[in-house]
Amino acid sequence: MENYLECGGKKVKDVSLQELRDRLAEFARVRGWDQYHSPRNLLLALVGEVGELSEIFQWKGEVEKGLPNWSHDDKEHLEEELSDVLLYLVQLAHVCGLDLGQAALTKILKNAQKYPVRNPTD
Amino acid sequence: MENYLECGGKKVKDVSLQELRDRLAEFARVRGWDQYHSPRNLLLALVGEVGELSEIFQWKGEVEKGLPNWSHDDKEHLEEELSDVLLYLVQLAHVCGLDLGQAALTKILKNAQKYPVRNPTD
Amino acid sequence: MENYLECGGKKVKDVSLQELRDRLAEFARVRGWDQYHSPRNLLLALVGEVGELSEIFQWKGEVEKGLPNWSHDDKEHLEEELSDVLLYLVQLAHVCGLDLGQAALTKILKNAQKYPVRNPTD
Amino acid sequence: MENYLECGGKKVKDVSLQELRDRLAEFARVRGWDQYHSPRNLLLALVGEVGELSEIFQWKGEVEKGLPNWSHDDKEHLEEELSDVLLYLVQLAHVCGLDLGQAALTKILKNAQKYPVRNPTD
Repeated sequence: MENYLECGGKKVKDVSLQELRDRLAEFARVRGWDQYHSPRNLLLALVGEVGELSEIFQWKGEVEKGLPNWSHDDKEHLEEELSDVLLYLVQLAHVCGLDLGQAALTKILKNAQKYPVRNPTD
Repeated sequence: MENYLECGGKKVKDVSLQELRDRLAEFARVRGWDQYHSPRNLLLALVGEVGELSEIFQWKGEVEKGLPNWSHDDKEHLEEELSDVLLYLVQLAHVCGLDLGQAALTKILKNAQKYPVRNPTD
Repeated sequence: MENYLECGGKKVKDVSLQELRDRLAEFARVRGWDQYHSPRNLLLALVGEVGELSEIFQWKGEVEKGLPNWSHDDKEHLEEELSDVLLYLVQLAHVCGLDLGQAALTKILKNAQKYPVRNPTD
Repeated sequence: MENYLECGGKKVKDVSLQELRDRLAEFARVRGWDQYHSPRNLLLALVGEVGELSEIFQWKGEVEKGLPNWSHDDKEHLEEELSDVLLYLVQLAHVCGLDLGQAALTKILKNAQKYPVRNPTD
């Protein structure tokens, strides 16, 4: 299923967590990597990628939103590390038998109840 | 846009990264939390959630796929921590001006080239 | 062995990594906790504590050296989380059969060779 | 101050946290690196090293104490990553103006009170 959204005048693919999960499951299956994908192996791989993500930011001091002054290469590197974290997270949820997308929506609703919006006239 | 997939006979919502991004942006906006969402603040919040995720697994020794013998409550707790990592990751990508879903698809393609499937008759 | 150093006019105990290692080994032994102290369990416990350490800093924006304006309680909380990371690190090295203090000195020497001091007149 | 302990028939240097702190402070000073050593920069560098430490363990499944069957090179690599975590932790405590060794001893005492040893005849 391919979905496209209008975003700033161009069509952007609407990428779902299920699509990533299915692609990653197939990726591991055809390479015979399933055997390594135990929950704690994937968790430690995730921690490793969070480390690489942190290394990008470690000597920069505070960084402004939108990353002004970052080079194209630095942004691409960041996209790769953000993706690596996501890909292991999706796989970790999958081998645990959990629906990450549904869980995320549920957590947003729970957070909305925990932190109600205050009426500015209160 | 609401998409539903057939999965094991029941309809499951197909949750996209863009939907999460938009919901989280609105969530922060109406609470006035945007001001705290600098890239490094969100990164450290992500690290904090990865820590909470690790705590779930820390004293368990190796854990089997599918989490047999885990209680409903333990699975729900795990879903929440996996979600918290995802939600900060989505927000971090967003404040950096990056398209996480597209980046993830690109990374899968790059990995496929880096690790070609070996033909078993080779 | 108790060593004291002069530091700002008061005597400060010079705490060694071996002392911490021995105290922690005894701590675990008398409580029957050795059985849980496998390398990967301790590693995940370490990651959990790094998460708690990060949570202290997550919404603060850039923080100045010396932590001016931090309350006594906040500093004490930080000391506890820094300690928790250290205590798991010491135990992880110990169950791996490695000498953390010696390894750290070796690493400093290696770094000194990797990053030579540049002569300002060069 | 150089202290040596008897350990398995050979003398082992008793490395203190203050010694590491002082060596690292001098290391940074003579290289002009102090300016980069803000608390959050050092914290993110620490997270980066914890990631590298995790990568060593990520595909191994459960690992036995003492690391039987690990090569000399793998153990040396592990010693380096454990050291890197320690060295950033020592520096983070130092720039925060905190005494890591004293804090660690205090935390052990606090833990001893929190988790009293149970008398086996109870």
